[in-house]
Amino acid sequence: MALTLVHVNSLPAADFTAAVGDCFELAPWVAEATAAKRPFATVTALHEAMMGSLRAASREQQIAFLRGHPDLAGKAAHAGGVTPDSKREQASAGLDSLNEDEFVRFHRLNEAYKAKFGFPFMICVRRHTRDSILERFARRLANDSATEFAAALQEVFYITRLRVAAKVTGEGMPQVDGRLSTHVLDTHAGRPAAGVAVELYVWAGERMLPLATGVTNGDGRTDRPLIGGRPLPIGRYELRFAIGNHFRSRGIDSGDPPFLDIVPLRFSIAEPEGHYHVPLLCTPWSYATYRGS
Amino acid sequence: MALTLVHVNSLPAADFTAAVGDCFELAPWVAEATAAKRPFATVTALHEAMMGSLRAASREQQIAFLRGHPDLAGKAAHAGGVTPDSKREQASAGLDSLNEDEFVRFHRLNEAYKAKFGFPFMICVRRHTRDSILERFARRLANDSATEFAAALQEVFYITRLRVAAKVTGEGMPQVDGRLSTHVLDTHAGRPAAGVAVELYVWAGERMLPLATGVTNGDGRTDRPLIGGRPLPIGRYELRFAIGNHFRSRGIDSGDPPFLDIVPLRFSIAEPEGHYHVPLLCTPWSYATYRGS
Amino acid sequence: MALTLVHVNSLPAADFTAAVGDCFELAPWVAEATAAKRPFATVTALHEAMMGSLRAASREQQIAFLRGHPDLAGKAAHAGGVTPDSKREQASAGLDSLNEDEFVRFHRLNEAYKAKFGFPFMICVRRHTRDSILERFARRLANDSATEFAAALQEVFYITRLRVAAKVTGEGMPQVDGRLSTHVLDTHAGRPAAGVAVELYVWAGERMLPLATGVTNGDGRTDRPLIGGRPLPIGRYELRFAIGNHFRSRGIDSGDPPFLDIVPLRFSIAEPEGHYHVPLLCTPWSYATYRGS
Amino acid sequence: MALTLVHVNSLPAADFTAAVGDCFELAPWVAEATAAKRPFATVTALHEAMMGSLRAASREQQIAFLRGHPDLAGKAAHAGGVTPDSKREQASAGLDSLNEDEFVRFHRLNEAYKAKFGFPFMICVRRHTRDSILERFARRLANDSATEFAAALQEVFYITRLRVAAKVTGEGMPQVDGRLSTHVLDTHAGRPAAGVAVELYVWAGERMLPLATGVTNGDGRTDRPLIGGRPLPIGRYELRFAIGNHFRSRGIDSGDPPFLDIVPLRFSIAEPEGHYHVPLLCTPWSYATYRGS
Repeated sequence: MALTLVHVNSLPAADFTAAVGDCFELAPWVAEATAAKRPFATVTALHEAMMGSLRAASREQQIAFLRGHPDLAGKAAHAGGVTPDSKREQASAGLDSLNEDEFVRFHRLNEAYKAKFGFPFMICVRRHTRDSILERFARRLANDSATEFAAALQEVFYITRLRVAAKVTGEGMPQVDGRLSTHVLDTHAGRPAAGVAVELYVWAGERMLPLATGVTNGDGRTDRPLIGGRPLPIGRYELRFAIGNHFRSRGIDSGDPPFLDIVPLRFSIAEPEGHYHVPLLCTPWSYATYRGS
Repeated sequence: MALTLVHVNSLPAADFTAAVGDCFELAPWVAEATAAKRPFATVTALHEAMMGSLRAASREQQIAFLRGHPDLAGKAAHAGGVTPDSKREQASAGLDSLNEDEFVRFHRLNEAYKAKFGFPFMICVRRHTRDSILERFARRLANDSATEFAAALQEVFYITRLRVAAKVTGEGMPQVDGRLSTHVLDTHAGRPAAGVAVELYVWAGERMLPLATGVTNGDGRTDRPLIGGRPLPIGRYELRFAIGNHFRSRGIDSGDPPFLDIVPLRFSIAEPEGHYHVPLLCTPWSYATYRGS
Repeated sequence: MALTLVHVNSLPAADFTAAVGDCFELAPWVAEATAAKRPFATVTALHEAMMGSLRAASREQQIAFLRGHPDLAGKAAHAGGVTPDSKREQASAGLDSLNEDEFVRFHRLNEAYKAKFGFPFMICVRRHTRDSILERFARRLANDSATEFAAALQEVFYITRLRVAAKVTGEGMPQVDGRLSTHVLDTHAGRPAAGVAVELYVWAGERMLPLATGVTNGDGRTDRPLIGGRPLPIGRYELRFAIGNHFRSRGIDSGDPPFLDIVPLRFSIAEPEGHYHVPLLCTPWSYATYRGS
Repeated sequence: MALTLVHVNSLPAADFTAAVGDCFELAPWVAEATAAKRPFATVTALHEAMMGSLRAASREQQIAFLRGHPDLAGKAAHAGGVTPDSKREQASAGLDSLNEDEFVRFHRLNEAYKAKFGFPFMICVRRHTRDSILERFARRLANDSATEFAAALQEVFYITRLRVAAKVTGEGMPQVDGRLSTHVLDTHAGRPAAGVAVELYVWAGERMLPLATGVTNGDGRTDRPLIGGRPLPIGRYELRFAIGNHFRSRGIDSGDPPFLDIVPLRFSIAEPEGHYHVPLLCTPWSYATYRGS
């Protein structure tokens, strides 16, 4: 259960560390160094102060902190020797269910990375898909040490921001959630298209995995966002709309088979905390989409 | 090599039958019955007169004519006991390269069809994909005899129209060819998108098979139609446009990964002799398509 | 000030008539006949019951009621011999500021109408523009008596519904307001267009009269609907968007002069209680609009 | 009547000068200086060589040449003391039919310009509308001498290119004509919209003047371009499409009045030798346009 910011502000220093210390993996000293800076006006300020404590530490302390993290999709995760937070995070991108080839691929990337930089690869997996993790892993391996050290700290920022936001509620919450929504307009009839089946897929290599389904309501929207209440994982997606059924149910003849049946919209998400509104304007003979708001 | 209509009009009756008799499978009597109606002002009129001779024949003759056709994807086709025209036509929809399951499926449909109607299933395969043939086969099996007899003659009309048009040239050719074309407009720059890779796929069951590729020229079009010079096979298709590369080459940043990369347009063709123009209007953040002209 | 439905339900009959009697022009007997049907669960039910009392009256009473209304844009309105409600309503469509020609035109229509039907022309002017009033006036003059009597009562329904909704608040308010809104999306940048000047005009004959202005906010919308909190007057409109300035401020060159500068969208409103969302999707080289939701 | 390039190449020098000398206003010496450079492989090369002769002349000769041109919309033009070419060109932008205010405005601009630069304002009026001439006039008055001298020579280039292209035909004609075309697609029906009335207007100050009308044919296009066979005058335009009538004739109800009736597309032309294709994709409830090709 989440603690209130007011409460966290008022705790004795030791209790504060006990309460939020594990937001930084195996590094309660970050919370200890931050306790005296209280009270914080916002949850965002609390998180930024903790990041400030980490940034103010010596390079040795920082490296030790990074080294305290498990390998991505590594044996430790399999065996259970990691914190529950890390475990949940890795599961969110499917890193707990890799096949043997994928496991080997991650293992090699991990070894190459640690050999080059001296600490494990950091990435905020809740902001990524398996594909984008692999892509960033390969790309960041090519960085020089200074660039990569900064990249690793930036990922620590994202990881700990999510942990703090999950643990403490109150004024000035950091923006950690994104939203993916859609809207189907029937511009043949001049009104929202109700009852249209919508499917969301995410790309994983050459395959597309089903992620969410919905049916449009009277306003042409799904009752809930297709993704919401969490960061949008960076990656490639496909939305599919059963437009052929919609026009058939309106009694419209657009050929046999109909010119449009399942309409796919293929797009990528690059801003996990953003709002992606991907609507479909359609007639039996045309359609349009755009990144809306 | 094609004969001219003028020449065909002037041939002695026996030579006329020898020249065009095989447009109607194993039924030179159709040409014989048509010879005296010459001269014809158009190739279309020649074909219609031959169809008229078939329609004027007795029901027994018509049934015999239908029975003279090979099974679709049948053993006779495999073994070679069919006319070269029939063989080429069946190959055009891939009916000469079915796997064992498909072969069995066709065999069962053929048997059920012949048991019900007393003649083999007629369909102008050059106007169809494998999927649409299977779909029509199942649908027409449910017809009553009179409806199905008319449907079979309509397919004979399509089959023989293509054969006559291939054999005789001259005034008033029947419209037997369709055209599938595309056009890519970059509405971000306000000009055609040149150099965009375009791929055309056709659906075959759950798979999509590559059918044609092209690259847009300075006017945003492919140099040749994606399909042309033949009937457009009825079926489901997907066009894919490498839009991400186009905008990347223009130096435009639309996120990492870019919002749009490969844009798929999925549509069906229902009019084999029609013109399907399926353009793409796009920016890095939006696109639209429609059946154009 | 509005009365609550609860209060209106509980008033002695005479006070009820005093409170809501003037919703029906010069016809307190309608309220008197309705008082005994109380209590009403909704304001909509109250209004419908009053209409029921009118419909249950004799034809003579109904005709007398219709005759109690002033001429549209007539001398009585000029001279002040009408109820304040009628006066405000006529002003809303500009009928209090006609020029001499228009006044004459209305006078002739009024005389022809009364000569034919025996009562003045009824129309709910708050649901109309001057143009649509003239158009309906001419059209309804051609009706037969029965059709026109029904049309007149339908307008009484609209007029009194607005009066009841203005006078009584509570559960189940009738839907009497419409909404006209817009939204500007810059599909060149993939985000809402902020700071775009928007102007709304209404057609009056050959001229367009300015009606409202706005500037889009960070979400590409105007802070308030262009028309809201009242019925949308039936008529022709034009929205104008200063798109040229928007793209110029983004430093985009689209020619000299720019291909698009002021973009006009011309449309009509036919459903006064509806929601008309008329967005603009635009790049420097293209735009699209639709009736959205 | 036009001369052929072959013929012009073969003429004695004096006859060459007599033939093409008047392409440069009152300056046969330009042709004289060019005669010895013949033969030219293309008409474009002939024109460029003549421009080269002008550019190679002394500044005094060039200034004298510029001074040989009449004032734009000046008294000389009114009185007849200018060459027929100049007269026709000025008429093409309506400069021969200015009202008194406009005449005074041009007079003041002419005087200010000559006082500052020492020669009359040069502009290729066939590439402009009255509005764009006034706009450029005011803008160029602010130039420094060197910039404006270059601008004047560029206009001489445009003026003489048109004259040479009108006088000499043959290989390698310069591109002097533009084209404005349209296309109406009914995306509700999935086919071109035939029989749609189209009107083209050009802006002149606050008014719009009718310029051309057409009706779409079976392919949704006008039989001829809306402007063609000449440069497209730089300026602001409006196309109007009678879309309401089109959908009414198809029996489609989109409200009373219909949501869309006359659809205006307002755009500017900045490239006189370009192709502007401005299509309309529409349903009864939506439309889109773009600069196409």
